[in-house]
Amino acid sequence: MMTELEDTREFRPRFNEHGLIGAIVTDASDNTVLMFAYMDAEALRLTRVTGFAHFWSRSRNRLWKKGETSGETLRVTGILVDCDQDVLLIKVEPQGRGAACHTGRRSCFYRRLDGDALDFIDSAPLFNPAEVYKPS
Amino acid sequence: MMTELEDTREFRPRFNEHGLIGAIVTDASDNTVLMFAYMDAEALRLTRVTGFAHFWSRSRNRLWKKGETSGETLRVTGILVDCDQDVLLIKVEPQGRGAACHTGRRSCFYRRLDGDALDFIDSAPLFNPAEVYKPS
Repeated sequence: MMTELEDTREFRPRFNEHGLIGAIVTDASDNTVLMFAYMDAEALRLTRVTGFAHFWSRSRNRLWKKGETSGETLRVTGILVDCDQDVLLIKVEPQGRGAACHTGRRSCFYRRLDGDALDFIDSAPLFNPAEVYKPS
Repeated sequence: MMTELEDTREFRPRFNEHGLIGAIVTDASDNTVLMFAYMDAEALRLTRVTGFAHFWSRSRNRLWKKGETSGETLRVTGILVDCDQDVLLIKVEPQGRGAACHTGRRSCFYRRLDGDALDFIDSAPLFNPAEVYKPS
């Protein structure tokens, strides 16, 4: 079974017990990891059909087009799958200001462990979240 | 709470209901995503203490030093955390033959979706799994 999954040309994404599959999002230009989020089958379908990244928000419990509020959409240039088909790698060209993180930064991974503390390694937000995400 | 997590210099990794946190592993030399696996608190501790990547194997239900059988260990050069501290990004220098995937390939992400089928984009294994993983 595992051998089949890793050798096949058939795309058989394995969703977990919550119907979700993890998706690593990288910048197609230089492989920088921008974010990690989950897709349900519908988010994956919409991502493939529209060419823009869609996810399932576990905190809001709904389908979500990345950038629908902020304008920071992600144009998909490639979808890869890992050996046992339970993680996706989505290669994108960030649109808008190029800030994939909701904090306004390019990447969600803006802190690096140094000893026991976190260093901010990409700390200049490209937008102000308080202005972009206004209460409706 | 979310704001605290994303603004703090305190490392507060959030393990899921199974006591695990997802870890994206990239090659420090060029950011290529090599694999995705899970760590429990002990795997994270050992990774930090030894400087070599350890994970929790969900299929074998045990702690696992990456490369303990194959020799394909991963020397850690950096540990990053995402905004809400529930995903890690582990930057590594692959040792051995440089094949992080158990199929013998450099990366687990060796297939790319092309239409409805998967294309093998990095299909030349660097070792023969049948020789490396012998039944004990």
